[in-house]
Amino acid sequence: MALRIQKYGGTSVADIDCINNVADRVLKGHEQGDQMVVVLSAMAGVTDKLLTLAGQASKRPDKRELDVLLATGEQTTAALLSMILKDRGYHAQSFLGFQAGIRTDKKSGKARILNIDCQQIKQALNNGSIAVIAGFQGADNEGSITTLGRGGSDTSAVAIASALKADVCEIFTDVDGVYTTDPRICSAAKKIKKISYEEMLEMAILGAKVLQIRSVEFAKKYNVPVHVRSSFSEEEGTMVVNESSDMESVVVSGITCDLNESRITLKKVPDQPGTSAKIFSPLAEAEIMVDMIIQNTRSGGETDVTFTVTKDDFIKAKEISEQVAKEIGAKEVLTAEGIAKVSVIGLGMKSHSGVAATMFKTLASENINIRLISTSEIRISCVILAKYAELAVRSLHTAFGLDQK
Amino acid sequence: MALRIQKYGGTSVADIDCINNVADRVLKGHEQGDQMVVVLSAMAGVTDKLLTLAGQASKRPDKRELDVLLATGEQTTAALLSMILKDRGYHAQSFLGFQAGIRTDKKSGKARILNIDCQQIKQALNNGSIAVIAGFQGADNEGSITTLGRGGSDTSAVAIASALKADVCEIFTDVDGVYTTDPRICSAAKKIKKISYEEMLEMAILGAKVLQIRSVEFAKKYNVPVHVRSSFSEEEGTMVVNESSDMESVVVSGITCDLNESRITLKKVPDQPGTSAKIFSPLAEAEIMVDMIIQNTRSGGETDVTFTVTKDDFIKAKEISEQVAKEIGAKEVLTAEGIAKVSVIGLGMKSHSGVAATMFKTLASENINIRLISTSEIRISCVILAKYAELAVRSLHTAFGLDQK
Repeated sequence: MALRIQKYGGTSVADIDCINNVADRVLKGHEQGDQMVVVLSAMAGVTDKLLTLAGQASKRPDKRELDVLLATGEQTTAALLSMILKDRGYHAQSFLGFQAGIRTDKKSGKARILNIDCQQIKQALNNGSIAVIAGFQGADNEGSITTLGRGGSDTSAVAIASALKADVCEIFTDVDGVYTTDPRICSAAKKIKKISYEEMLEMAILGAKVLQIRSVEFAKKYNVPVHVRSSFSEEEGTMVVNESSDMESVVVSGITCDLNESRITLKKVPDQPGTSAKIFSPLAEAEIMVDMIIQNTRSGGETDVTFTVTKDDFIKAKEISEQVAKEIGAKEVLTAEGIAKVSVIGLGMKSHSGVAATMFKTLASENINIRLISTSEIRISCVILAKYAELAVRSLHTAFGLDQK
Repeated sequence: MALRIQKYGGTSVADIDCINNVADRVLKGHEQGDQMVVVLSAMAGVTDKLLTLAGQASKRPDKRELDVLLATGEQTTAALLSMILKDRGYHAQSFLGFQAGIRTDKKSGKARILNIDCQQIKQALNNGSIAVIAGFQGADNEGSITTLGRGGSDTSAVAIASALKADVCEIFTDVDGVYTTDPRICSAAKKIKKISYEEMLEMAILGAKVLQIRSVEFAKKYNVPVHVRSSFSEEEGTMVVNESSDMESVVVSGITCDLNESRITLKKVPDQPGTSAKIFSPLAEAEIMVDMIIQNTRSGGETDVTFTVTKDDFIKAKEISEQVAKEIGAKEVLTAEGIAKVSVIGLGMKSHSGVAATMFKTLASENINIRLISTSEIRISCVILAKYAELAVRSLHTAFGLDQK
């Protein structure tokens, strides 16, 4: 008998037929004698509809009230699945975030889980019930409803798996696992059977949308085995687990491509102590996340400072930079929107040299100019022009031996 | 400074424009210095949509889970109004049933309020906030969400008014008050300025849909002054209050017409002790509400038993009656669906004789045959053929001097 957490995303609960399919799958586990905890997202499209409604009510909807509104999406699917399970003669019970004991901080819209009091869920499981939990939501210590940010149901599932010490946390989605790269860009992409938390984290940060970043951090921190798989097939997906010896033989596990960044350059910045702080403090105050930062040395006591931000933050970041440029005496602000960040990721980089060299050589052989470079222990990222992005991904996929045989 | 509860029904919060109108009205009170508590229904049509969804999930949706689903409707409007109020620069806070401290029994779908712990609401009011409460819902002592039945937001509002000892509970709806009869049937109908709880209760039971029956019972029990008025005008509506001396001068306050009943007659029932119990116990077990019961004496130790039930329960009641008829040896089961129950209501009946005589004479003068009669201390009801219903209402309205001058 295993204790399994299953999380189903929006496309897996898009309508009553889909929810009936979810019920089939849940009951298969239940019939095997497993204890089943199901975490659900809102029906596909519902969260966006609610956001539109909120946008009609207010240009900047109050965050606490937005959470109250958005939480109805998962409440709806949790109630419907429980109804269907009970209709088929099984014991089931829905739990909203606060009923599932999911206590969060007060940061509406991007709350973090502080702890989970699983007593109610455990009791339901011990009574032979299937526990159906509204994902994406919790409650702060005053009982106000909070939500965990886009994709937050992944985090709900992993956190509950950790709290219940579940045997596995299965993330059911509309793709059948994690791929070496986006199969829509590179047809030779292949499914990864096993990937480490660290690699998955880099891939999630770099735009692989299979798992919410925070859920991977959570899984890593509490060592929760995560199985990413398709809700439309029976096939095994990708296991996200602790680093193991058999993983290191692979130098590069995956290649990502992020088209969601824009570049801003402040030209001829007087090269004085404190200049960087003057540039980046106002951006931080405006809650703009800066990704890559490069500073080139120039002659004559001047330097160029280049950084990237997400497209959502671009206009605001540009305005702030132009203001700052005046204040610090920079000559010019240049921007580039049509850029792509291509990254290779692999635990093996820790112990293999030459990955960077292979990457640069491969891009050079395709005549692709590299604009910015940044690295981590297990990742190398290059910013290139967006029009070369697909070519770069395919070439790197081949160069690092990832093509499907 | 007054403490006012305002309840807005589904048509008053049908879309963002409507909710903006509600905000205008609420802020008018707030600007006058009144403490404002707002109780909202779901957007018009939303509860029906959710019921349809539930019907797709299960032919007999589990009641606990149905409550979880339906509660999203009021959660949505409470969040939206709070957003709008905050967007305009005012302090506001939404409260779901459980957050408002509305504790109910466990009867999903028709829960009764046991008590209200108003601490959170009081605190919000004392901080200068407008409290926006999701109507129709509460939570049982295990924290499960419950709903109070159709029109339950009226009861939420009256119960909160009672718990907070509010100065008035204003029920905003799409009609501008309680009328002497349905203005769609009788153009001479006029708005009643003041009506007693007892009369309002009879009118609600008899099909005047302005207020949920239970909310009137609640208002009567706790002596809550209720003001029924239109959310689309500034006009005064109808005050529902304790019986007062100036009311008794009016003999008949209103006339109602209920087309929602059907009649069942068991013919030639052996006239033995215990027969009635045999007929009505199985109906009670099936949770069918029987309204009027008439037993005629016949010759030869046989009797006819006639009763009425709502149209919703008719088919089930007919099946049960046919089964019972066989068991107790009744000769025949007759049914009539095209019937109407016309009632005259008035506190004055307590001290005036001749109301029944006037009613029978009026119907007779229009050649309308009376099939069944039932009375209470302040009401006389006659069942007639449905096709005569409108004629009967208009004639009685004139006969009892209710026509508008």
